[in-house]
Amino acid sequence: MKLHGYFRSSASYRVRIALNLKGLTAEHLAHHLRKGEQCAPAYLAINPQGLVPTLENDAGAILTQSLAIIEWLDETHPEPPLLPKDPLRRAKVRAFALVLACDTYPLQNLKILTRLRELGLPEEQVTGWAAWANREGLAACETLIADEPGPFCFGASPTVADLCLVPQLANARRFGVEVAAYPRLLRAEAAAKNLKAFADAAPDRQPDAE
Amino acid sequence: MKLHGYFRSSASYRVRIALNLKGLTAEHLAHHLRKGEQCAPAYLAINPQGLVPTLENDAGAILTQSLAIIEWLDETHPEPPLLPKDPLRRAKVRAFALVLACDTYPLQNLKILTRLRELGLPEEQVTGWAAWANREGLAACETLIADEPGPFCFGASPTVADLCLVPQLANARRFGVEVAAYPRLLRAEAAAKNLKAFADAAPDRQPDAE
Repeated sequence: MKLHGYFRSSASYRVRIALNLKGLTAEHLAHHLRKGEQCAPAYLAINPQGLVPTLENDAGAILTQSLAIIEWLDETHPEPPLLPKDPLRRAKVRAFALVLACDTYPLQNLKILTRLRELGLPEEQVTGWAAWANREGLAACETLIADEPGPFCFGASPTVADLCLVPQLANARRFGVEVAAYPRLLRAEAAAKNLKAFADAAPDRQPDAE
Repeated sequence: MKLHGYFRSSASYRVRIALNLKGLTAEHLAHHLRKGEQCAPAYLAINPQGLVPTLENDAGAILTQSLAIIEWLDETHPEPPLLPKDPLRRAKVRAFALVLACDTYPLQNLKILTRLRELGLPEEQVTGWAAWANREGLAACETLIADEPGPFCFGASPTVADLCLVPQLANARRFGVEVAAYPRLLRAEAAAKNLKAFADAAPDRQPDAE
């Protein structure tokens, strides 16, 4: 398989963790987002959004959108599972992941912050926007798992919720968010970071890290 | 079941379509977003994001995030299916839905446009932002299904892709986007709107419509 990504992209980071947890390897193809490499015609031909990640599977099929890729990985390589078996528990895990993947990360990624700058907002307001988006999402997530015993977001092993959480906390810190306000999330993050699958997927461990 | 929603919320609209396709009924509880009713403490207790929709199932369990609710409905009420059986096809359908649910809708919902106004952007720039987000997402979706025979986004019956598309096209028109640029999407929309399940879920058919 081939994974088109970028070391600092949270969505790529989620998929790297999933591949590692499943014990799968992929050739990593880096697209430097700050240099606009994701907008090259050859890349747009496989990902019309010009976003990372994109996964090419062994048969050459193209998969886009990190959560769709992760669900596909989980359906085709079921062990270890990244979602619980019970439908209601699955819905809880997916909802947590979607708070971050829909309502948090897309509001503060490079594309959006660039657009805000183009509209003339000063850097302080741009960073403030990114921090606000992170605080809103993380505060909701903290509440969603307040009664979950853990140590992961949902139970004794990582799920797609943890795959979204760990990269998002890294973003939050980068934008100056006081993450100590989210002790339950930090406990899940600590459990995750003890696993080699998460550690090896970290941005600073990637070949394209700067 | 009880569905907490708002007539004009695209995310609520998606779930209304899913319930109708599955032949399920739910009591509709309206929360007027422009009046801030979604931020009432009683509502935040069940949905810490203060967003709609929220589904309370027959056992009183709380489900949030429209795509998580729809996957739960599909898992617990499998007929008619809202996702194909083949894992790769499922990934394609989910990716299309996520382009809209992650990278389009959250950038142009009421909460974000309100925030842009608070940052001092003039109304023209705020509307321009919303139109831009719609054009980016819809253009990518048009490409994703360019080779799909249809008439729905993926095949001869509606999937979660169509559930996301129909509400998004309504938003796009509201923000002045020239949707004629997306003929394949319009063909899927036309097929969907011929179905009573979609027609009955439309915003102007809801009890709280203004």
